[in-house]
Amino acid sequence: MSASTWAVHPDDRERVIKAAFEAKEFAYCRYSKFRVGAALLTTTGQVIKGANIENASYGGTICAERTALVKAVSEGVRSFTALAVVTDVASAISPCGMCRQVIREFCAQNMPILLVPADYEKRLAGGEPDGGIKETSIGELLPDSFGPEDLELPRDH
Amino acid sequence: MSASTWAVHPDDRERVIKAAFEAKEFAYCRYSKFRVGAALLTTTGQVIKGANIENASYGGTICAERTALVKAVSEGVRSFTALAVVTDVASAISPCGMCRQVIREFCAQNMPILLVPADYEKRLAGGEPDGGIKETSIGELLPDSFGPEDLELPRDH
Amino acid sequence: MSASTWAVHPDDRERVIKAAFEAKEFAYCRYSKFRVGAALLTTTGQVIKGANIENASYGGTICAERTALVKAVSEGVRSFTALAVVTDVASAISPCGMCRQVIREFCAQNMPILLVPADYEKRLAGGEPDGGIKETSIGELLPDSFGPEDLELPRDH
Amino acid sequence: MSASTWAVHPDDRERVIKAAFEAKEFAYCRYSKFRVGAALLTTTGQVIKGANIENASYGGTICAERTALVKAVSEGVRSFTALAVVTDVASAISPCGMCRQVIREFCAQNMPILLVPADYEKRLAGGEPDGGIKETSIGELLPDSFGPEDLELPRDH
Ligand SMILES: [Zn+2]
Ligand SMILES: [Zn+2]
Ligand SMILES: [Zn+2]
Ligand SMILES: [Zn+2]
Repeated sequence: MSASTWAVHPDDRERVIKAAFEAKEFAYCRYSKFRVGAALLTTTGQVIKGANIENASYGGTICAERTALVKAVSEGVRSFTALAVVTDVASAISPCGMCRQVIREFCAQNMPILLVPADYEKRLAGGEPDGGIKETSIGELLPDSFGPEDLELPRDH
Repeated sequence: MSASTWAVHPDDRERVIKAAFEAKEFAYCRYSKFRVGAALLTTTGQVIKGANIENASYGGTICAERTALVKAVSEGVRSFTALAVVTDVASAISPCGMCRQVIREFCAQNMPILLVPADYEKRLAGGEPDGGIKETSIGELLPDSFGPEDLELPRDH
Repeated sequence: MSASTWAVHPDDRERVIKAAFEAKEFAYCRYSKFRVGAALLTTTGQVIKGANIENASYGGTICAERTALVKAVSEGVRSFTALAVVTDVASAISPCGMCRQVIREFCAQNMPILLVPADYEKRLAGGEPDGGIKETSIGELLPDSFGPEDLELPRDH
Repeated sequence: MSASTWAVHPDDRERVIKAAFEAKEFAYCRYSKFRVGAALLTTTGQVIKGANIENASYGGTICAERTALVKAVSEGVRSFTALAVVTDVASAISPCGMCRQVIREFCAQNMPILLVPADYEKRLAGGEPDGGIKETSIGELLPDSFGPEDLELPRDH
C-alpha cells in the first residue's frame, strides 16, 4: 500500500493542515528565525500541534515534528493517521533526519506526511491542485531505516 | 532570593507533584526501562505533564522535563512557577544536563524544582517531613550557565 | 551519477572497511550493548575512525558515524570519498536519522556508504560476492533532505 | 579534594590551553557564527582537540567539548586530567548542559576545567594573574548530577 492510498477524510486533512499553520504561531526560533509548525492527526480524530523550540546550545533544539510527537505520546496517544508540516517558506520543506527517526518510532511506514507550502491558501485560490502540498511518508523519507528491532538482532562476535 | 522563598501555594505544590506521578504512566522507555514523569506549574495555575519518550537511536530520546517544556511552549505558555520530577526510584533523581539547559532557556534561576522520590506518599504517611522531596532550582543545578545572551557577546578576534 | 559509479579504489575500499571493524573495538555502549564502528575515507586517502559513545541520559549519545564526522571536521577535513559502517549484527545495518542528517551536511549525495555485515570476512571466504555489503548513499538514505540552503530561502508571511 | 588541588603541570596546562585556541580554527559554525575550541589533556600527556560542528537541523549540532570527548573515547582514551575551552568572547564562557552531561560520563568530579577568555594572551601580557581563566570542575558545573549508577537503582513501583 502506498501512502497515497491511505485514506484520510478530506475534512480531517483540512483540519490537520490548518492546525499546522496555527502551531507555527508558537514557534520559539530566536536563533534560526525559521518558524515551523506541525500537527498530528490521531486515529480518534484528535489533532495535536507542535512548533520548533530552539535552545541557546543549538543541540538542545527540538523541532516541531518531535514536539508534536512527544506531546502526543506523553498523553498516551500512539496511533496516528497523518502528519502535516509547514514553515514560512513558499514550498514544501522536509523534516530533518532526527525528526524522521522519531516519526519512524511511532508512525506507520505509509502514513501520509503532508509537506505544506506557506502559501498554500494562495495556491489553492489560484487553482493549483492540492495547494502545492507534497505528500510523502516515513517509508519514503527514511528508507531502509534503523529501528527498535535492529537492537534486538543476534550478535555475531 | 533562594528557591525556598519562592512562593508556591501548598495546593498548587500538591497538584504539580501529583501530576508528575500521573505523567510517569505514559513514559515510553522501552530501552532504559527507567520511567520518568515531570509536571510544570504555570503562572496561570495550569499544570502541563511530560514523560520520557525514548528512541531506538538513543540520541533521539527526549526526557520528561523537556517533553513538558516543549509541550507548554508550543501552546504559547512560557511562564512557569514550579517543576516536579519523579521516577521509579525511591530517592530524589536529578535532571540530566540536556534538560537543565532547556529548563535554563525558559525558567527563572530560582524557580522551585521539586525532585520527588517514588515512595513520596509512603514517606509522608510515615511522617517524613515533605515526603523526602529535594527542592532545588536551575540556578543551583546549572551554575554559571551558558545562555542566549552569551551568543550575543562581542567577539574578540 | 549513482553511488555505484563513484570510483573508490579497491585498496581504499578494503582499508575503510577494515578501519570500521577496528573502530568498533572502542565503542562505549554500556547501555545498548550494541557496538558500532564507522570509518571515513578522505579525498587525501586518510582514514578516520568513529565508534558509538553512549551516555546515561540516552539523548546525549553520539553514534559512530557522527563521531567519525566531527573528528574529521574538527581536524579541518571536510572532503570525503566513502563511509563504512559495521555493527555486531550479521547483516547490513543502516545509520539512524540523526547521523544521516549530519552526513548530509558534509558528504556528497552519491558518495558511497558501505553497510558492512559483522560476518563480512566469513561471507567473503564463503564466496559471497562483496561479502554481503550493502552499498548506498546519503541521496538514497535521506531523500528530499532538509539542508543548509533551506534555512536561507525567502520567507512568505 | 577541590579542583584547585588537582595537579596539572604548568607546561601541560599551557599545552592544553594552546590546543584549545588551535582547535577553534576548525569550528564549523555557519549558523551561530560562534566559534568554540576545546582540548583534553589525557593521563598519558596526549592532547585531543575539538571544535563545534553545527548542523542545519540545529539539534544535530555537536559542541567542541563533546567533539573532543568522543574523539578521545573512540581512540580508546578515557582517562583525562584537564579540559580547556575557549570561544571568541573576551571572557570565560561555560559549557552547555549537554556537554556537562557527557563530560560527567568520562571525567572525574574535580578534574580541572579551564574556561579561557579569547583575550587570554593579552591579559597575561597585561599582567592579569592567570590571564583571566576561570577554573572549575564538573562537580561544580553539574552538581547533584544524573549518571550511569542512577539507571541501576532499584525501582519502587
Ligand atoms: Zn527536525
Ligand atoms: Zn534529561
Ligand atoms: Zn546514528
Ligand atoms: Zn555544549
